[in-house]
Amino acid sequence: MSMHTVTFLPHNKKVSVNDSDVLIRAAMEAGVHINASCGGEGVCGKCRVIIEEGEIEGGISEKLNQEDIDKNYCLACKSLVKSDLTVRIPVESEINADVLNRQAMPRKTARIRQTNFDDLKEKGLFMPPVEKRYLELPVPDASDHVPDVTRLINYLKMNHDEHRLVVSLPVIRKVPEVFRKDHFKVTATLSRPVQEGRKTHIINIQPGDTTARNYAIAVDIGTTTIYGQLIDLATGEVLAEYGDFNGQISYGEDVISRIMYAEKAGGLETLHKVVIQTINKVVRKIVDQSKVDLEDVNNITLAGNTTMTQLLLKVDPRYIRRAPYVPASTLYPPLKAVDLDIELKDHANALVYPVVSSYVGGDIVAGVMGSGMYRTEEVTLYMDIGTNAEIVIGNKDWLACAACSAGPAFEGGGITFGMRATQGAIEDFSIDPLTLEPMIITIGNVRPKGICGSGLITMVATLFELGVINNSGKFDRDLKTPRIRETDGVYEYVLAWRTETQIDRDVVLTEIDIENLIRAKGAIYSGALTLLEEVGMSIKDVERVMLAGGFGSYIDLEMAITIGLLPEMDAEKVVFIGNGSLMGCRMSCLTNRIRFDVVEVTKRMTNFELSETPSYYERYIAALFLPHTDLNQFPKLKARLESRRKNGVSPNKT
Amino acid sequence: MSMHTVTFLPHNKKVSVNDSDVLIRAAMEAGVHINASCGGEGVCGKCRVIIEEGEIEGGISEKLNQEDIDKNYCLACKSLVKSDLTVRIPVESEINADVLNRQAMPRKTARIRQTNFDDLKEKGLFMPPVEKRYLELPVPDASDHVPDVTRLINYLKMNHDEHRLVVSLPVIRKVPEVFRKDHFKVTATLSRPVQEGRKTHIINIQPGDTTARNYAIAVDIGTTTIYGQLIDLATGEVLAEYGDFNGQISYGEDVISRIMYAEKAGGLETLHKVVIQTINKVVRKIVDQSKVDLEDVNNITLAGNTTMTQLLLKVDPRYIRRAPYVPASTLYPPLKAVDLDIELKDHANALVYPVVSSYVGGDIVAGVMGSGMYRTEEVTLYMDIGTNAEIVIGNKDWLACAACSAGPAFEGGGITFGMRATQGAIEDFSIDPLTLEPMIITIGNVRPKGICGSGLITMVATLFELGVINNSGKFDRDLKTPRIRETDGVYEYVLAWRTETQIDRDVVLTEIDIENLIRAKGAIYSGALTLLEEVGMSIKDVERVMLAGGFGSYIDLEMAITIGLLPEMDAEKVVFIGNGSLMGCRMSCLTNRIRFDVVEVTKRMTNFELSETPSYYERYIAALFLPHTDLNQFPKLKARLESRRKNGVSPNKT
Repeated sequence: MSMHTVTFLPHNKKVSVNDSDVLIRAAMEAGVHINASCGGEGVCGKCRVIIEEGEIEGGISEKLNQEDIDKNYCLACKSLVKSDLTVRIPVESEINADVLNRQAMPRKTARIRQTNFDDLKEKGLFMPPVEKRYLELPVPDASDHVPDVTRLINYLKMNHDEHRLVVSLPVIRKVPEVFRKDHFKVTATLSRPVQEGRKTHIINIQPGDTTARNYAIAVDIGTTTIYGQLIDLATGEVLAEYGDFNGQISYGEDVISRIMYAEKAGGLETLHKVVIQTINKVVRKIVDQSKVDLEDVNNITLAGNTTMTQLLLKVDPRYIRRAPYVPASTLYPPLKAVDLDIELKDHANALVYPVVSSYVGGDIVAGVMGSGMYRTEEVTLYMDIGTNAEIVIGNKDWLACAACSAGPAFEGGGITFGMRATQGAIEDFSIDPLTLEPMIITIGNVRPKGICGSGLITMVATLFELGVINNSGKFDRDLKTPRIRETDGVYEYVLAWRTETQIDRDVVLTEIDIENLIRAKGAIYSGALTLLEEVGMSIKDVERVMLAGGFGSYIDLEMAITIGLLPEMDAEKVVFIGNGSLMGCRMSCLTNRIRFDVVEVTKRMTNFELSETPSYYERYIAALFLPHTDLNQFPKLKARLESRRKNGVSPNKT
Repeated sequence: MSMHTVTFLPHNKKVSVNDSDVLIRAAMEAGVHINASCGGEGVCGKCRVIIEEGEIEGGISEKLNQEDIDKNYCLACKSLVKSDLTVRIPVESEINADVLNRQAMPRKTARIRQTNFDDLKEKGLFMPPVEKRYLELPVPDASDHVPDVTRLINYLKMNHDEHRLVVSLPVIRKVPEVFRKDHFKVTATLSRPVQEGRKTHIINIQPGDTTARNYAIAVDIGTTTIYGQLIDLATGEVLAEYGDFNGQISYGEDVISRIMYAEKAGGLETLHKVVIQTINKVVRKIVDQSKVDLEDVNNITLAGNTTMTQLLLKVDPRYIRRAPYVPASTLYPPLKAVDLDIELKDHANALVYPVVSSYVGGDIVAGVMGSGMYRTEEVTLYMDIGTNAEIVIGNKDWLACAACSAGPAFEGGGITFGMRATQGAIEDFSIDPLTLEPMIITIGNVRPKGICGSGLITMVATLFELGVINNSGKFDRDLKTPRIRETDGVYEYVLAWRTETQIDRDVVLTEIDIENLIRAKGAIYSGALTLLEEVGMSIKDVERVMLAGGFGSYIDLEMAITIGLLPEMDAEKVVFIGNGSLMGCRMSCLTNRIRFDVVEVTKRMTNFELSETPSYYERYIAALFLPHTDLNQFPKLKARLESRRKNGVSPNKT
């Protein structure tokens, strides 16, 4: 994809963007504030900029008159970058350069860790759990009339060095006909053992050479959303991806209410059936999209939290929510997809990630396996951020984990205008430090409906760093702006006025919202600290942070550190892996090494019950500030805040 | 059971019999001829004997008048032995003592080899493939809250030294509830691996202690008949047995016609369904009879010939009957009974014996395994005699096998009055060497309907040894008896007159019948000789003969040697194992050693195609005589025949 450089004047800030990126996003990334309150739909008309050089597409709206257009004005939120550009922020949008340079830093989005297929191959780890082998067998005659299956096994040994083979009954049933369909030219599908040294199962036999067609499916079963990917096992490529709401949502929002429903007569069967229906819908979508033959989909790997896993497998989850919180099992045996009523062919394997405990589930194990943290020397802190946040610390020698209830703030729960990271969610935000006018960007560049996790973090961090809110998350009562107001006794900041939204109401961020976010980040940060203490370490010993979760397509690292969700550390050390569960399932489809290792790793993951660790509560209370009661844990932030207090401009006060 | 000695006068022959045995059978066993043509139903009234000492029950019929009764006459066929007896054969039945002593030898029934449970235990071989273990688990609390399945596995390790355990999904589903039903007191059902060193599967979990209830089922799937046994795995006892005709009979008498039916549209599915229906009927019968709980039936082992095996498993058998006669597979993976629609509980395993080739099937492998011949030093000749006769030669170091088409003579096919060994079949026979009047005994002591395999062998041997038929099986045309006659150009011997039978027709043995028997025995004997030659041995090297087959409840060894079915050898070296396939399945239920060994043994069984061995046809032609063209192969018989020619009485001639 071709890249363009956009230069913003008068501050001469440069940013490199993809062709056809939206100009206002380029500005946000460059740390250039442009007032904008409609999310990018072009209705507020505030984000006027002047194109001095280069080419854009669009950018015109009824908010601009002919005179504006003649002067090369356009709306940044409607302009697509088509070449290198020089863009001037006009006087009416401009603010003190000094302020700008300090306040709005370029975004330090965590690097997204992606599957590096070549890397896997180089390390000798590319070894899918299902492989195909093509054979041209000699036709039997009077001097060579071993049974068909014996012929198959003999030649797999001889020509492909395949040993310790087991043939399933359905394959035996197909063999006589398939052998004779194309003159004894056949492709055998081999399913590798889940443990090293155990047997390889021949799970399918096809006439002719079909080795180029070998696919697997990865599925993350979230409490709310189910994501699937279809993976080409020949190339490692993700051919299709699809997500849908978990059909169980109608039976309860969270795992506890699901378990309660499962305890009713027929409840378990219903929840099982419903989640399978969603999985089947996802499977159908990605198979259709990628136009592969269902016959060539040989594997499905699934991961979910412990409750989702038990419901998937129709295992009564009632003891998960009752002290002493005992799950049925950690490991589940390899299955066939059809055993679970997943609509794949009879021969397709189904693998379900093991769980550690009632609240550290297969989604986390998948993240630990897929991210490779269990194979590295570096001490890694893995955090899966959601309603239930899970934390894993360790490396190739040891692993410790814990779960804490963060509350649903990161997924939009308990936030007045909270919403998931879908179309219309405010996902990025900056603010004019003098006027406190916002620049908001929504997913899909449409008028805002609400706020998603990453947007929330950025807002609270920005407001805190600018002094608009204090370290308890309370608004400065003296600021002179119509955007900060008291409604029914609660202070709030208006992100978008009613006319600029999709919902015919002002979209606001309240002090209660901020409190909920602080509680959520406090639970996670203190959980990590407690877990570190339990293993005799401190935050300084952490060499890498891996961030997983579905709270937005990216998270701004500085912002996450500013609110005290993450410990202060080099951006280079942080990777964002997005949906860790899905990633782990995908990696399982590409390297059977994970299945060889996962049982041992799961056993090695020592589970700590934070609720039984008294120091957790103390740490939690200490973390209920921005970023923390002990600002010394965040030395860079502390320095920045002190510098701002001395030199910075302040918002207009009454 | 109490035993009685019966002494027959005037020849002073003694025999030991069970209490309540029928007197005429005692006579037959002692080699004492008594004319008798009604099979033992008491209607011919010929078998009059005098009880000189001791006590009988019954024996009276309208054929005896008061004078007879006063003189202690009774009918031998209606008299049950109730004490030691002295019985006089009256003048009218008596014949030349000299003749008697030479002609009618006591029966040398092959010893029946039975499962010796104590022996198995002594040899350390009692190790059923399914075992139960009882556990009293500690109840979880805050300090001990491992997952339920982990608790199960940990305590199986700790208390029962059970390692390498795998838990199936259905068990995981049951665990949480079962644990909490009886205060964490549970019984785990363990299914041993089919290969040494592999994993043990936990296939069921029950509340409380159920270790005393552990059962398995053995099933022989014959082309004609299906037999099942229910076995108590705690005691080794057979609790119930039941046999029924294979429902596939309606679709063809033999394997070839079944294969042809299977090739029709839907034919395979039908034959599969029908055999499963019969198996389910047999299973239901033996489970009901023995009043065990289906929940405690943990294993079913099945064996059949290659066609029966493929139909059982719904594997297209069409290539079995087409050159080069390729079966689908030798081995079949372990299954669940429900995979085959066998009506056992979901957790019950199903094991199907492997086959060697298209015509040496799982029934033979079962016989080889169950008889233990694969574990002994002795060179053993194993013959399974039926329509398709299979021959195995070898010992613990090597095994060779072959199949030959004997025709259905031993099972009653191609014999004018041939029938299976069921009620009314003549199963034993002797003849008055002067008058040629017969003594016949039927199964069930009822009037005869026909002749079963063992009866046929005895008749032909007796007639041959006495010179009534020559070594080509032709009747001496000069004998003076109404029992030998020519009907429609074919000579025949009348075994029972119309009025003495159940079928309102004379029951006869014709020269064509004898020819068919000679062909059948010739095929088997020459098959054995050819196989021996192929492995570089002769009949002298055979140290033991094992005889399997459903052609009667016993076979008289001397008779089998006299017709040239068996080589001449010490009676002690011959064992009759009855249904070898069923026995092998039963042994598999008692010792998992068989499953450990069977794959290796099956591979070791070198299969010879007699049809591709030119010497087989020469040998076959040479064997189409009684006992053989080369009488020197039967030196004892030769001496006996020569002695009879010199010294013996001859039948009355015209």
